[in-house]
Amino acid sequence: MITKHEAKQAQERTAALFRQAGIVLSEAEKLCIEIAEFGLNELNVQGLELVTYVNTDRYCAKELALFPRQTCPEHLHPPVGGDPGKMETFRCRYGQVFLYVEGEPAAKPQAVIPPGSEQYYTVFHEIVLQPGEQYTIAPGTKHWFQAGDTGAVVSEFSSTSRDEFDIFTDPRIVRIPVITEE
Amino acid sequence: MITKHEAKQAQERTAALFRQAGIVLSEAEKLCIEIAEFGLNELNVQGLELVTYVNTDRYCAKELALFPRQTCPEHLHPPVGGDPGKMETFRCRYGQVFLYVEGEPAAKPQAVIPPGSEQYYTVFHEIVLQPGEQYTIAPGTKHWFQAGDTGAVVSEFSSTSRDEFDIFTDPRIVRIPVITEE
Repeated sequence: MITKHEAKQAQERTAALFRQAGIVLSEAEKLCIEIAEFGLNELNVQGLELVTYVNTDRYCAKELALFPRQTCPEHLHPPVGGDPGKMETFRCRYGQVFLYVEGEPAAKPQAVIPPGSEQYYTVFHEIVLQPGEQYTIAPGTKHWFQAGDTGAVVSEFSSTSRDEFDIFTDPRIVRIPVITEE
Repeated sequence: MITKHEAKQAQERTAALFRQAGIVLSEAEKLCIEIAEFGLNELNVQGLELVTYVNTDRYCAKELALFPRQTCPEHLHPPVGGDPGKMETFRCRYGQVFLYVEGEPAAKPQAVIPPGSEQYYTVFHEIVLQPGEQYTIAPGTKHWFQAGDTGAVVSEFSSTSRDEFDIFTDPRIVRIPVITEE
């Protein structure tokens, strides 16, 4: 869980990262930056910051921010009803992203697996994204990603987003954000 | 029609505009910037420059560039087969955009209608987009847009794009790009 004060600080840090990446947000958007700490209580290690620009029943677009070496934990997007599962394209706008998906594992992955959570990281096919580079993840594919040493900003283009159905490898994870008072 | 030399020049001008807006493109993308002059032979008045990042059967994302006061002519996206027509969200990243859709017309529109093409502009409900502002256009809605005096860069998030089915108000328009030799 994260306190309101911590969430506010993380929002300000995220706004600064977006600014550095040349991404302009409205004042209303800055106030609504989502802080996902996944119930793990170590935001700077495992977490993700984001703004959802639009999420209709046909498509979705988000701007993601990762602090230096921050990791979005391994998960997949399952089929939901008639939907074959979320398909998403990650486009790096700033910094560097180490993205891992199912497939031939890297001999020496460049990301640092979050200490104490090693058992919940199981896919190691490595894609390194620099600004201007992108990768599309097929529905139902396990994936996780980590920013390089300067943090990262990533545009996510996708089919409809239904975060509440995401399946995380780490059973401790709670996707729905929880903010405590104070 | 546009010559290869003119197309190359427009690509370079577009790449500079993207750079100014803080948008990073890969070298391959810079070489593939699409120059849409709509068969009207007045690119700087009626035209559009774009990079398609991704276009799957589920979603599409493009980066659009408009030179100062350049206009993307009025058109709509009709239903195609089982698809109810393209839905799109325009997010201004740089500059200023005057967007017009069906609805209560502006008393004094801020865009300048392309001279000689007045009859092909019929909707005047005005939305002004500054960086960080966005607007979603429902399928089947006539719309057109013009950049302000500094040009504009717009991220387009949408359902699947099928440009060849677009219906333009101006019957002279040919959407498929034509480049002549030399």
